[in-house]
Amino acid sequence: MRVAAVQLQCTPDGDAARGRAAELVARGASDGADLVVLPELFASLGRRAAMVEAAEPLHGPTVEWASRLARETGVWLVAGSFVERADGGRLFNTSPLFAPDGRLVAHYRKVHLFDVTVDGAANRESDTFAAGDGPVVHTLDTLPAAPTVGLTVCYDLRFPELYRIEALLGASVVAVPAAFTAATGRAHWELLVRARAVESTMALVAADQWGEAPNGIVNHGRSMVVDAWGTVLAEAPEEGDTVVTADIDLRAQAELRERLPSLANRRPSAYRWPDGEG
Amino acid sequence: MRVAAVQLQCTPDGDAARGRAAELVARGASDGADLVVLPELFASLGRRAAMVEAAEPLHGPTVEWASRLARETGVWLVAGSFVERADGGRLFNTSPLFAPDGRLVAHYRKVHLFDVTVDGAANRESDTFAAGDGPVVHTLDTLPAAPTVGLTVCYDLRFPELYRIEALLGASVVAVPAAFTAATGRAHWELLVRARAVESTMALVAADQWGEAPNGIVNHGRSMVVDAWGTVLAEAPEEGDTVVTADIDLRAQAELRERLPSLANRRPSAYRWPDGEG
Repeated sequence: MRVAAVQLQCTPDGDAARGRAAELVARGASDGADLVVLPELFASLGRRAAMVEAAEPLHGPTVEWASRLARETGVWLVAGSFVERADGGRLFNTSPLFAPDGRLVAHYRKVHLFDVTVDGAANRESDTFAAGDGPVVHTLDTLPAAPTVGLTVCYDLRFPELYRIEALLGASVVAVPAAFTAATGRAHWELLVRARAVESTMALVAADQWGEAPNGIVNHGRSMVVDAWGTVLAEAPEEGDTVVTADIDLRAQAELRERLPSLANRRPSAYRWPDGEG
Repeated sequence: MRVAAVQLQCTPDGDAARGRAAELVARGASDGADLVVLPELFASLGRRAAMVEAAEPLHGPTVEWASRLARETGVWLVAGSFVERADGGRLFNTSPLFAPDGRLVAHYRKVHLFDVTVDGAANRESDTFAAGDGPVVHTLDTLPAAPTVGLTVCYDLRFPELYRIEALLGASVVAVPAAFTAATGRAHWELLVRARAVESTMALVAADQWGEAPNGIVNHGRSMVVDAWGTVLAEAPEEGDTVVTADIDLRAQAELRERLPSLANRRPSAYRWPDGEG
């Protein structure tokens, strides 16, 4: 299967960001991509007030726009993420997946919220967003091998639990829309993307923002496609709106899972999680 | 705290291997190391029959030898691993931890057995060994900050579950005695050691075998100490018996855990492990 990761800079003008996103999705589609992934909050990353302002219901304008885009380009589309206002008013950082006919077939609400201090500045994503309640995978049933894709977002990369569970749920490819800060990205972005791929023998499609976003944080770029051996198949530079495309050999990946069965060799009876987790 | 990783080639002569190990532990101690880690099965890695032959009870000659070595050098010693014959006759790949006064204070039985195919040759560690039943951590109570060390062995590196659970049990440093094959090591050794450190904000002391072992497999070398940011603080070459030493700044590591709290930001309620795990 062929996959594409779109890299974008988010600007305060959401319509302009969606316009550039549409162009790059179309370019990925014309390159033959079966699955295209956009970055996290590619049209709405900003300070708290702006993100609250940009919130919309699940079946709102962003999903309508992305549904049309998937249908027009004929790809499976992980439309990055957007600010979802759920019933009851809580906001989620939500990543929607569309089939090539435009159907919204799954949506994942970011589980791990970015409550950290970077370069001396505190970031509290949980001041704005509620956390999603679990992993989401979906089978791309129009493709020959019917691979299952897992959905994740950015900071999730630091939590192997989520990737492992999605692999156990059948994922062979995982999408990572991101706005990974440059400060941590130089040290950790490629490392974590490759490690998640290697440890669970699956491919990752990691679509990152680049440059300074309207929230004042500079993002790392370096969108990439990594195979199950950890090889970087395609990589964008640190700067620039672009799309990178690569072929994932699902048969080779399945054979690798036979030779190096780190999923089958797990020892769940030894995993005594604290606090009655699990 | 200062830590040291000893790198050795295993040969059929166990006494010679122990002699070289003792020299290198003493060198680490004279470099000021508080904790020294030896490689997996550094004196007994071989084909199945040889390993069965080398099996000994927990309180056998290897533990006696290592106890004396820890006492004589005054270090906390993770004495790699040895072939333990447990009550009932089952064999374990067991990593013992000694206090500076020579007491055996903890022992970890390798949880994940290396049942893989490398370079076309099938390896079935589970033909010889039984799997351990869980993580082991121990607090180094003679050291100023009283850090807790986690015990793991080699192939465990592909299983983030074990490292995460040891971090949650309080580990700030994890020992990784290994005989990591060169074939997979070039692609995955440094990646996995660094990822385990970064994702749980802890240091890793990874002591690897190098060269061809008596089981016919060539090991990767590149023993290393990695800090919680993923920086390789010290690294051995691919070949050669040696010891590498580095300082782990536990205060800086604790501060990093405040700024980048990927342990505190976990979402256990979202981790729905399959099969009633946990």
